[in-house]
Amino acid sequence: MIDKLINGIKEKNAPIVVGLDPNLAFVPQFVKDTAFASFGQTLEGAGEAIWLFNRAIIDQIYDLVPAVKPQIAMYEQFGIPGLEAFVKTVDYCHQKGLVVIGDVKRGDIGSTSEAYARGHLGPVEIGGKSYFPFNEDFVTLNPYMGADSVLPFVKMAGQTGKGVFILVKTSNPSSGDFQDVETKDGSRIFELAARKVEEWGAGSIGENGYSSVGAVVGATYPEQAKTARALMPHAYILVPGYGAQGASAQDLLPNFNEDGLGAIINSSRGIIAAWKKEEYKEFGQYKFALASRQAVLDMKEDINAALASRFGHKGEEK
Amino acid sequence: MIDKLINGIKEKNAPIVVGLDPNLAFVPQFVKDTAFASFGQTLEGAGEAIWLFNRAIIDQIYDLVPAVKPQIAMYEQFGIPGLEAFVKTVDYCHQKGLVVIGDVKRGDIGSTSEAYARGHLGPVEIGGKSYFPFNEDFVTLNPYMGADSVLPFVKMAGQTGKGVFILVKTSNPSSGDFQDVETKDGSRIFELAARKVEEWGAGSIGENGYSSVGAVVGATYPEQAKTARALMPHAYILVPGYGAQGASAQDLLPNFNEDGLGAIINSSRGIIAAWKKEEYKEFGQYKFALASRQAVLDMKEDINAALASRFGHKGEEK
Repeated sequence: MIDKLINGIKEKNAPIVVGLDPNLAFVPQFVKDTAFASFGQTLEGAGEAIWLFNRAIIDQIYDLVPAVKPQIAMYEQFGIPGLEAFVKTVDYCHQKGLVVIGDVKRGDIGSTSEAYARGHLGPVEIGGKSYFPFNEDFVTLNPYMGADSVLPFVKMAGQTGKGVFILVKTSNPSSGDFQDVETKDGSRIFELAARKVEEWGAGSIGENGYSSVGAVVGATYPEQAKTARALMPHAYILVPGYGAQGASAQDLLPNFNEDGLGAIINSSRGIIAAWKKEEYKEFGQYKFALASRQAVLDMKEDINAALASRFGHKGEEK
Repeated sequence: MIDKLINGIKEKNAPIVVGLDPNLAFVPQFVKDTAFASFGQTLEGAGEAIWLFNRAIIDQIYDLVPAVKPQIAMYEQFGIPGLEAFVKTVDYCHQKGLVVIGDVKRGDIGSTSEAYARGHLGPVEIGGKSYFPFNEDFVTLNPYMGADSVLPFVKMAGQTGKGVFILVKTSNPSSGDFQDVETKDGSRIFELAARKVEEWGAGSIGENGYSSVGAVVGATYPEQAKTARALMPHAYILVPGYGAQGASAQDLLPNFNEDGLGAIINSSRGIIAAWKKEEYKEFGQYKFALASRQAVLDMKEDINAALASRFGHKGEEK
């Protein structure tokens, strides 16, 4: 799956993943009205609204980017109907040829992580039958509980040809509370995590030179990104924090390797709520999905310009 | 809610929480047959099987213990139908007067943690209406992402009278990979987490002297428990690892305070899969829930004997 992701990045010339994190505040009123007309102002109505919203955006961006990253919290907040919208979104993205990174940040003691791994990277066995309940291609994981909380996912990913991204240095303001703490050996905690990622991925390196065990490193911390990049040369880095969280295209560069690969940049609000931004207000609520398309095109240009300034013009003769 | 939990522990003389972690391997064949007869060997069939299994056990233990702890991974592995069984289980436990600790180990960047907090400790607002989708009384949280990943839950818990338990030192074999790492100041990472727990709970101390911000400390690490206990005197400690994971009643003692309170011990497999153990085989599969009841009674005796050896005979004149 890591090779499918990388080949998609190359083909579409877009190291970009669109975060499908649909808060109701991002959903245009006419979409909500449509959903509520059928289901009322209920959890079912909210689930329908975010599904309709997602589908319209997916239709406008699937040809531009290799992957999407639905954040499961935004669905889980609406209970069962929200999670039904999550499942429909994953299935629809697969129909459109997109790689799906489930941003679930799970992790638990071994036997419990096995259950999560069955549910998300599946299969789960019931009697004599097998099912893939959530069926993402990648999931994000929290490593605080150590190796035995992560390895059941790595093992399942190996069996199903999927992958994981492990939190190393997250994009949020207080990520340093634990991740930047210096150990007595002079490493910081996120550096230990980065070393583990490289170690856990050693057995799954694909044709492009990257393993199925990737890492999450926030764009908001370029200094730490440089360090993490060096510690885990075979890990693909999923980079949140561009745009709405404040990082610029230049801030992203330390996450890339010399091959111009090695990182995929996420934008969520900046894409899916583009229609609410001054910059795209000409689209209005009814063309919200076209505003998202334009925002992807603009992001692609911004990132590729930064990459060109660092690595030369990719995709052209030099 | 922390006071409801503590008062329940006192009334039932049982610092015990039953972990409702229903793997299909724990469910007697006749229960699975019943469920599969209606729904087939499907996700729906699995969801029905674990719900029937849970309900029978809850009926036999609700008068003995103050709380249950469903581990959401065991439901999530069966997708939407599994999570429907989770919701039914939470609701049924509430009907039976039990405090429900959702073992979800969530945590994300601020706005995403807010969404999780709405979903689990909720309400979530839809149009002009409010819903409590999962509606646990407490949730467990992973602190690796720092303060802004935890505080949205603490805030929501304050608004809804609920609570949280934050991972400090987990019970699994490799929990030390990060949690036991020594910092340059000579603290270990779990000690930093313990200090944060005490700090984050300072504003929510109830009538029994404990805050709504508790901690998870595994029974399998009594030395670390002693340290953690001292660092967070106002935190209730949720203690996994007793029984199936190998810890004895004596190992639990460091988690308690001098008042004989301060800790609640979880057992999952040891209770819900009791009918499969040699010790309770006389019950057979058809009386599996009675085996669970007996296992709770035995656990209560074991733990109260250990507590009496340490704190004197509770509930009797000394």
